[in-house]
Amino acid sequence: MSGPAIGVVGAGAWGTALAQMLASDGRDILLWALEDGLADAINTTHINGLYLPSATLAPAIRATGDLAAMRECEALLLVTPAQHMGRVLDRMDAFPRDLVLCAKGIEASTRRLMHQVARDAAPDADIAVLSGPTFAHEVAEGLPAAVTLACGGGEAQWDRLSHAIARPAFRPYYSDDVTGAEIGGAVKNVLAIACGVVDGLGLGQNARNALITRGFAEMQRFGVALGAEAETLNGLCGLGDLVLTCSSTASRNFSLGRALGEGQSAADALADRRTVAEGAHTAPVLRDMAADRGVAMPIVDAVNHLLDGRPAPQVVEDLLARPLKSEGAGL
Amino acid sequence: MSGPAIGVVGAGAWGTALAQMLASDGRDILLWALEDGLADAINTTHINGLYLPSATLAPAIRATGDLAAMRECEALLLVTPAQHMGRVLDRMDAFPRDLVLCAKGIEASTRRLMHQVARDAAPDADIAVLSGPTFAHEVAEGLPAAVTLACGGGEAQWDRLSHAIARPAFRPYYSDDVTGAEIGGAVKNVLAIACGVVDGLGLGQNARNALITRGFAEMQRFGVALGAEAETLNGLCGLGDLVLTCSSTASRNFSLGRALGEGQSAADALADRRTVAEGAHTAPVLRDMAADRGVAMPIVDAVNHLLDGRPAPQVVEDLLARPLKSEGAGL
Repeated sequence: MSGPAIGVVGAGAWGTALAQMLASDGRDILLWALEDGLADAINTTHINGLYLPSATLAPAIRATGDLAAMRECEALLLVTPAQHMGRVLDRMDAFPRDLVLCAKGIEASTRRLMHQVARDAAPDADIAVLSGPTFAHEVAEGLPAAVTLACGGGEAQWDRLSHAIARPAFRPYYSDDVTGAEIGGAVKNVLAIACGVVDGLGLGQNARNALITRGFAEMQRFGVALGAEAETLNGLCGLGDLVLTCSSTASRNFSLGRALGEGQSAADALADRRTVAEGAHTAPVLRDMAADRGVAMPIVDAVNHLLDGRPAPQVVEDLLARPLKSEGAGL
Repeated sequence: MSGPAIGVVGAGAWGTALAQMLASDGRDILLWALEDGLADAINTTHINGLYLPSATLAPAIRATGDLAAMRECEALLLVTPAQHMGRVLDRMDAFPRDLVLCAKGIEASTRRLMHQVARDAAPDADIAVLSGPTFAHEVAEGLPAAVTLACGGGEAQWDRLSHAIARPAFRPYYSDDVTGAEIGGAVKNVLAIACGVVDGLGLGQNARNALITRGFAEMQRFGVALGAEAETLNGLCGLGDLVLTCSSTASRNFSLGRALGEGQSAADALADRRTVAEGAHTAPVLRDMAADRGVAMPIVDAVNHLLDGRPAPQVVEDLLARPLKSEGAGL
């Protein structure tokens, strides 16, 4: 296809799946990979053996290890891990107008949301956030998905991006609430740890779904305190992503929680893991940010107690022993 | 334990599980069973072999086939199927002050919510609604659960009921929004059919969770049009129950949808089932009630198309082909 390529920065599972989805109509895609040799391997074999081995990648995808090449793209999807986003952006000295953030999380060292990280690195860019309930391997397979595309550049940016990003099986929905679109993806990983704990303790599906519901209330309170609109959190990037993550027993966050629920110590459970679950990074940051704003997040507090080494049965008992109250009362 | 018993009207799986939960602290429970001989069998064997065979029932549970005996109870939990509630209440000529509705659905022939059915039959009673994410067998086993207890009689009724109903593993949360507490339980069964269809078509978890999220938006719009508070629908009785039902592949509604998604005709899928899935009753009623109020419910419409015999792939394709829009725009 003619015209400049769409760029995808980060060739993990999600970045590679997004590239595959975008290439499904023949659009040229430039995929940046951090790891030495990965770009060459992708270009030679059309397989990302490191992060998404199940997919044979479309010929329209070209991989590169040269970050400077990405500036020529029509738009960039930024898909590095949250804790690395700032460093990658700081290595770039020019950007296309449209940056689409696809990483979920909060930069722990500075407590910045991803759009704040991007704004600081690329003050002239229009920043959008793409987030929703999306398992990478399903998107790579062409199964249908719907996401929130929150455009800091408003409807003008939406008009440019929605047609660049939408495909028959990949439906973005418009929002202009960039902060709201980021909250769900940051909070859900912590709540998924809690759901794993409930599973590890054998407490059943009623308890898990009560926890998801009460956790959603925490997400809403926290988001609104940060300036998000409640409606955004009700959508695909908030509720949708939360439910997918908390219903899936396969995620790193859920399995960390399950190990804690089954009685493994926090030190052992964290040490056992090759890559730390993102929720373990986020939990203390969320606790501190919520405390600064006077927002009650008892489930997030409970996850922090667990990560600090308190035994799971005791933490859950404390949660259950809270006094009977109105759901709206915040506890 | 002294004092009048708490009554449970209806010895299906959920009524029996509630009786078992209430009896867990030794409280006397009177359990009414419709079926000939079931009350005697329960009193003799302490097993409800018809509806909850896995539980050995507490000795504090006494079963009866005499509906008139229930009037002496301190409060009644009404747990008949939604389409039978009116008939059972019409057979009673006196009621205790507190009636707690635990049936989910809309009376199809009159489009009345359960609290309207109860108010018409017992105009002097204070009517409450108990609803939330609750698999009966888990509650019977004593696993933890949390529910909304919406009290039409306000905080005074809550003060009476919460201590009668709460147990260490069963936590009610207060609301005064009786209508809101009923909407989730009625709408979720229809949405569970839709989730089953997506599963039967092999469309994956991203699609299912997008559907849950968009379905939740339909539930909210419909509820608010009926006078419910959005906050109630965000709670255990709304979101919580929706997510549990739509994540469980075991329910009658989900498996009806899955059969449709796998290509079975609607006529065969409905005929194959000993008991019709409640969502199949509710779907046309919801469609009509929503149309009367100008509320857009595209997923409910799609389920009706399916039940009317339209092939599943075509219905889903129509849903996916809707134009790109804001999530808040109602479609």
